[in-house]
Amino acid sequence: MSEDFRQQALHYHAYPVPGKIAVELTKPANTVEDLALAYSPGVAEPVREIAQNAENVYKYTGKGNMVAVITNGTAILGLGNLGPLASKPVMEGKALLFKRFAGLDSIDIEVKHRTIDEFVDTVANIADTFGGINLEDIKAPDCFEIEKRLIERCHVPVFHDDQHGTAIVTAAGMLNALELQGKNINEAVIVCLGAGAAAVACMELLIKCGAQREKIYMLDRKGVIHTRRDDINEYKQLFANNTDKRTLEDVIEGADIFVGVSGPDLLAPEALKLMADKPVVFACSNPDPEIKPELAHAVRDDLIMGTGRSDYPNQVNNVICFPFIFRGALDVRASEINDEMKLAAVDAIRALAKEPVPAEVVAAAGADKLEFGTEYIIPKPMDPRLLPRVAKAVAQAAVDSGVARIDMPVGYMEAK
Amino acid sequence: MSEDFRQQALHYHAYPVPGKIAVELTKPANTVEDLALAYSPGVAEPVREIAQNAENVYKYTGKGNMVAVITNGTAILGLGNLGPLASKPVMEGKALLFKRFAGLDSIDIEVKHRTIDEFVDTVANIADTFGGINLEDIKAPDCFEIEKRLIERCHVPVFHDDQHGTAIVTAAGMLNALELQGKNINEAVIVCLGAGAAAVACMELLIKCGAQREKIYMLDRKGVIHTRRDDINEYKQLFANNTDKRTLEDVIEGADIFVGVSGPDLLAPEALKLMADKPVVFACSNPDPEIKPELAHAVRDDLIMGTGRSDYPNQVNNVICFPFIFRGALDVRASEINDEMKLAAVDAIRALAKEPVPAEVVAAAGADKLEFGTEYIIPKPMDPRLLPRVAKAVAQAAVDSGVARIDMPVGYMEAK
Repeated sequence: MSEDFRQQALHYHAYPVPGKIAVELTKPANTVEDLALAYSPGVAEPVREIAQNAENVYKYTGKGNMVAVITNGTAILGLGNLGPLASKPVMEGKALLFKRFAGLDSIDIEVKHRTIDEFVDTVANIADTFGGINLEDIKAPDCFEIEKRLIERCHVPVFHDDQHGTAIVTAAGMLNALELQGKNINEAVIVCLGAGAAAVACMELLIKCGAQREKIYMLDRKGVIHTRRDDINEYKQLFANNTDKRTLEDVIEGADIFVGVSGPDLLAPEALKLMADKPVVFACSNPDPEIKPELAHAVRDDLIMGTGRSDYPNQVNNVICFPFIFRGALDVRASEINDEMKLAAVDAIRALAKEPVPAEVVAAAGADKLEFGTEYIIPKPMDPRLLPRVAKAVAQAAVDSGVARIDMPVGYMEAK
Repeated sequence: MSEDFRQQALHYHAYPVPGKIAVELTKPANTVEDLALAYSPGVAEPVREIAQNAENVYKYTGKGNMVAVITNGTAILGLGNLGPLASKPVMEGKALLFKRFAGLDSIDIEVKHRTIDEFVDTVANIADTFGGINLEDIKAPDCFEIEKRLIERCHVPVFHDDQHGTAIVTAAGMLNALELQGKNINEAVIVCLGAGAAAVACMELLIKCGAQREKIYMLDRKGVIHTRRDDINEYKQLFANNTDKRTLEDVIEGADIFVGVSGPDLLAPEALKLMADKPVVFACSNPDPEIKPELAHAVRDDLIMGTGRSDYPNQVNNVICFPFIFRGALDVRASEINDEMKLAAVDAIRALAKEPVPAEVVAAAGADKLEFGTEYIIPKPMDPRLLPRVAKAVAQAAVDSGVARIDMPVGYMEAK
């Protein structure tokens, strides 16, 4: 990162006011009469209505449009465990994205804690304040247990975006890429380099999309995760492969899919050469991918490639998912974000990539043209159709799967 | 409350959007370039700066302007213990007041918990997210222990407004009233009807202003709190009077001051007649005071009276304190809101009531004129001078008493 960009980023965060989000009033508060409605004595009326029927909280307060972005700062971007306070700019950034892309009010909560129990208790105790909870930048394997327990305890959707947002966008892009390559996910041999939160979630979702667990080779820092290893946690255990292969070189040979959620330059061009015909390579390490696209394309011309970066084609960016999945979930007061909703998001994202792209989206992406194909398998973050398409699909899936507490609003997302 | 007003209040809360507060962005988030600064990769820069020096969180995030309004819903307005969810409109209302009066960004957090320990742990664990914490509508005596323990554990100011905001405004008004009545707080006999959070805090602050503890008679539902009672908690114990008097009638005779924080119509006209010459009566039960001003003035013409209501003179309303005390505390990054700061707020509020009142403030109050005297001892909530005067006094007191982490900004509050 250049010093110039560094200074720009610091300046952006510091001026004219510190940070990126603020609170605004949605109701008049100018006169004595306004304040008598907003606070004492008028505020007693919505209080009584909610005390009589808890669901009225959605009618008289901002809860239904509010998402908390909650972290403990143990896995901040690619920077590691820097603690809750240092994570605040990222969490405020996430809140900014929720507002910018889906009109959701979002605030950050940084949690200091000793044990997982304490983190879970803290979040569960404040959860009713919000319409939904986005967990963020929590290290694996803690994040799995934390999310599972919070889903059980909270009445509102809890969603660890680093897992499921990444997985949804990866699955959507992957299925489109396989379609273009003429391959079937059911038969694909998959190499997943990395075994953290995103890796586990991506593979689990690909399995729900048809991938065969026994055809997946997941690798952590020590190599292939296999059934004879005794040093792996219960989440990696799910991917322990009954194989004699031990290294990336062993498993990459003949593989159809490479998903990298690890670190820079870990996929050598020589290894890429060993993959099957027409492979799909998602090198999502950020900012530096597991293999640079220039290098990959120089080695072979039959691959489809995605990265985490906006300056290459096929960016795997969860901003095209999380604002809209929460939008849809909250708009039908879903009690959770279940697999049906995640798969509906995958389908909606896939479908959108196949539609003609409006000129302004092409321009915003700095592209000459965008047309479904090897260089455009995933919609662009600036595509305004993502909001209505993904939110509506997710809301409908929530209703259909029985986790919505209200019906789809009439004409939902049609005007947009 | 009329049915018409009830409907107005519900409509105000429900339309055009539910609730009263939302999140807005303070930085541009339109282009791919904007988002690269706001989120990945640019956001890594402020993260690193904060990881190196925690104080940088005030430079690059909204923490320094953010106040959390936190409750468990155990003592909502005069409505009692209706639980955290039902309290949400009140907490959002408080957040609205913070923004409206002091430009502070404020959000509500409703906490579900079993034990006091759990409430304290929950709030302490999320406290670093905010610049300050306003505790609200927590029942006594829990509120005393909760506040004490949170002050010990948090690095940011924790302030239970129902206690201290009420106490500060009461003390300011009372000292001005006594001055007008030609009386000295040191010699005053004080009757405090009510023994909850506000009562205890008001009396403690009056003592810091010179009142004699042994001249205070506090009454709970069972009558005078005296040294032979064995049914009183440690906080009431502080006001146990070594006296044979047992009833309100016993203690009101000859009293100079009546402070009511109890319930409607509990001070009979006959009792009022028994008070000393030139008494001061603050009947703060809301919406119905301990004695109606019309009735009180009909019984005697030498009293100065205050209530909690905006439609009578001398409203004891903590909105003239809490936004500004937080504004001042946050602007010098005070680690707490100590007695020096509370007393500075009392003095600033007192002094402002003695100044000529701008015409627009008189008009906003719906008054013909406002001039320091028996019907104007406390500034009006709509007085824009409260912000610079109170905030500056509080900030200066924080600096002078050694709890500020930065100096007073040059020219602080002078332009306003």
